[in-house]
Amino acid sequence: MRYFADHAWLGGDGVEADVLIEVDGERIAVVTAAAARPPDAVHLRGLTLPGLANTHSHAFHRALRGRAQRGGGTFWTWREEMYAVAARLTPDSYHALARATFAEMALAGIACVGEFHYVHHDTGGVRYTHENAMADALIAAAADAGIRITLLDTCYLTGGFDRALEGPQRRFGDGDATRWAERVGALATTTPAHARVGAAIHSVRAVPAAQLATVAGWARDHEAPLHVHLSEQRAENAACQAAHGVTPTQLLHEHGALGPRSCAVHATHLADGDVKLLGSTATTVCLCATTERDLADGIGPARALADAGTPLSVGSDSHAMIDLLEEVRAVELDERLASERRGHFSAAHLLRAATVDGHAALGWPQARGLQAGAPADLVTVGRDSVRLAGSTPATLLEAVVFAASTADVRDVVVSGRRIVADGLHTLVEDVPAALDAAILEVLGA
Amino acid sequence: MRYFADHAWLGGDGVEADVLIEVDGERIAVVTAAAARPPDAVHLRGLTLPGLANTHSHAFHRALRGRAQRGGGTFWTWREEMYAVAARLTPDSYHALARATFAEMALAGIACVGEFHYVHHDTGGVRYTHENAMADALIAAAADAGIRITLLDTCYLTGGFDRALEGPQRRFGDGDATRWAERVGALATTTPAHARVGAAIHSVRAVPAAQLATVAGWARDHEAPLHVHLSEQRAENAACQAAHGVTPTQLLHEHGALGPRSCAVHATHLADGDVKLLGSTATTVCLCATTERDLADGIGPARALADAGTPLSVGSDSHAMIDLLEEVRAVELDERLASERRGHFSAAHLLRAATVDGHAALGWPQARGLQAGAPADLVTVGRDSVRLAGSTPATLLEAVVFAASTADVRDVVVSGRRIVADGLHTLVEDVPAALDAAILEVLGA
Repeated sequence: MRYFADHAWLGGDGVEADVLIEVDGERIAVVTAAAARPPDAVHLRGLTLPGLANTHSHAFHRALRGRAQRGGGTFWTWREEMYAVAARLTPDSYHALARATFAEMALAGIACVGEFHYVHHDTGGVRYTHENAMADALIAAAADAGIRITLLDTCYLTGGFDRALEGPQRRFGDGDATRWAERVGALATTTPAHARVGAAIHSVRAVPAAQLATVAGWARDHEAPLHVHLSEQRAENAACQAAHGVTPTQLLHEHGALGPRSCAVHATHLADGDVKLLGSTATTVCLCATTERDLADGIGPARALADAGTPLSVGSDSHAMIDLLEEVRAVELDERLASERRGHFSAAHLLRAATVDGHAALGWPQARGLQAGAPADLVTVGRDSVRLAGSTPATLLEAVVFAASTADVRDVVVSGRRIVADGLHTLVEDVPAALDAAILEVLGA
Repeated sequence: MRYFADHAWLGGDGVEADVLIEVDGERIAVVTAAAARPPDAVHLRGLTLPGLANTHSHAFHRALRGRAQRGGGTFWTWREEMYAVAARLTPDSYHALARATFAEMALAGIACVGEFHYVHHDTGGVRYTHENAMADALIAAAADAGIRITLLDTCYLTGGFDRALEGPQRRFGDGDATRWAERVGALATTTPAHARVGAAIHSVRAVPAAQLATVAGWARDHEAPLHVHLSEQRAENAACQAAHGVTPTQLLHEHGALGPRSCAVHATHLADGDVKLLGSTATTVCLCATTERDLADGIGPARALADAGTPLSVGSDSHAMIDLLEEVRAVELDERLASERRGHFSAAHLLRAATVDGHAALGWPQARGLQAGAPADLVTVGRDSVRLAGSTPATLLEAVVFAASTADVRDVVVSGRRIVADGLHTLVEDVPAALDAAILEVLGA
């Protein structure tokens, strides 16, 4: 299979013209810039990027789009509305919702999702007969949508420091970290090729300090990604200081949860020492700017983290919108709002966060861009809309990062399979209808 | 002519179903909710809104999209790049660029633009034989694109407090406010029906204090809008304090430039007393959030201004993107980032800013929404994309405000004429091609 891209981003500060990408099965065999166009090649009109990595997702939050924006409140009142949806999920309804949500991601150029999954058990916390029924539903949903998934199986044991799980939270709990590890161990031995299993600590609020090392140890033993929600809200920092006398970052570090395979999600409210710790341990940070705007979290220190040595990635998280181009430009633009200075990250740096560095944080380091040996993931952003009109090869990268929309994504190839052709999903016939039906089902409206 | 909207926003906190809108010439004759669908009515599928008002535009900045995002720098280095484009404009090239840019606005649901216009004269400041050639080019461009325009003819006399115009700025100058008023007076007597003329003070940096009252007086005498860039950058505040010992807001107030027909653009860096002055004088504030992000201006006190009595409006300003839905959600979301609280503005309040209040600030108070007697401006946002899937009538307003894109705008009627049908402009055949050609011409690339 051969693809010919009018322009492609091969990882540098600009774009290359006339790029021939030869694919052998699931992988890229050869990439040749300034090539002639073979008549049999699929012609990708626009700018072709590597597959985008959505490093942080809670698929079921998609049902809240529009609903969660009514009225006021705080992060914590938003959480009550989110729990009401979590309470209603079944393996079947969650499969349908995740399939449709992952198909929406595919249309937005996302080749791989990190699903931060904690709705493990039936109502009241009762284990399903097949105890990983929910995780398997999510892995199957990704297959249906044609994308890869890292199932970040999340340890979620407490409702706060020294507080038991309550109400819908009881679905999340495995009792203790050892039982969590047993369940996840069974899951990790049976994953199909499009999936891998990672570990997650929901947050320092949700896993007692004495059990953090068990989760971190499982990830280390399995060479698996380890993700954790970190300091999204100031209240978490205050509660952690009160309980342990240290910041959440320090607590995670003390228990071996930071490192090059770890990914801290949000990292909004950090002390200077936290920034240094995350950087010196080469922990990735996943920024979720549209969610952080929606939930009024605040603006995290993205540039300081990058300066300290932290790779950045991005996630659509609550799916208020699913648009990783908006996520990455927001990393730059929100830093501008906070600093009143321009130009913190180049377009190429932002695209690396959305592609290569995100994939690495999800345990797919082989997805290192448009080069031989990498998975054949191609995302083509059309240049035919008014949004990108007027761009030239010299400005195309910046135009796409700062002005394009998911609506401009025309073609998507994931692991050698073309899953979006001319803006339409090739596997899920009517994605909006699938979303409508799945959301209606879980809302019971 | 009759239109039947599946859903429409009639100004309340929610949407109405099955809305029949009967149009007589350029105006709405009757609006009936819960109506039967007549077979001859144009069926508007999705949510129909009143026409959007883009309260602040510099059409020629559209040429900078993608270019101005390369590298770093400040507002002031960005301005150098912008001046380089301003230096190249001719009446013909500006007509072509504005026509294409206004057509992009039409595709985004914009029915009326406030063009803050200051490139009045030929290179070096020489008057054109027809001294309003540039303004007329902009007014013609709006007609070509099918939208209304308020030509905010801008008085721009100095390059700073006690500093003469330099280089490309010399094109902006009329010498003094009296000569500015003479030129604008000639323009204002000859405007066609789709246009009106307003006044603008570029900023307190660009009009000496002693001449502010001349511009304000012209606006008062002509019952015309009076717009002004206000406190976008802290440097302006510092320079104004140094020169006059007061804030820019106070200076404008002392010279009669605030009031219900006035509109302060940006209003980012305000003292508490400034907020009170803008509110008590009922001066509108135009927020340009995507530009304020791009130029690293900071986050203005939108909620405090609204609480003080200020009507809000929005503008795409530098056209880093043209998406008034992104502009209005950014008003709410950036306030969340600054305050770490949710729910400052309802979706309806944000839509009023983008429609009715924006039109009022541009001198079209008759454009008061989908009701009898108002101009027949209808903007239909399709619900058939993944972005709005899962919305219900109860959440449709919030879904559109917080998750839709200009790519979802399907149909646009302005003053009774359908200028966008099924996502295509009916008057400008190929808008991206028009943008490409016009931008190539002014960049000379």
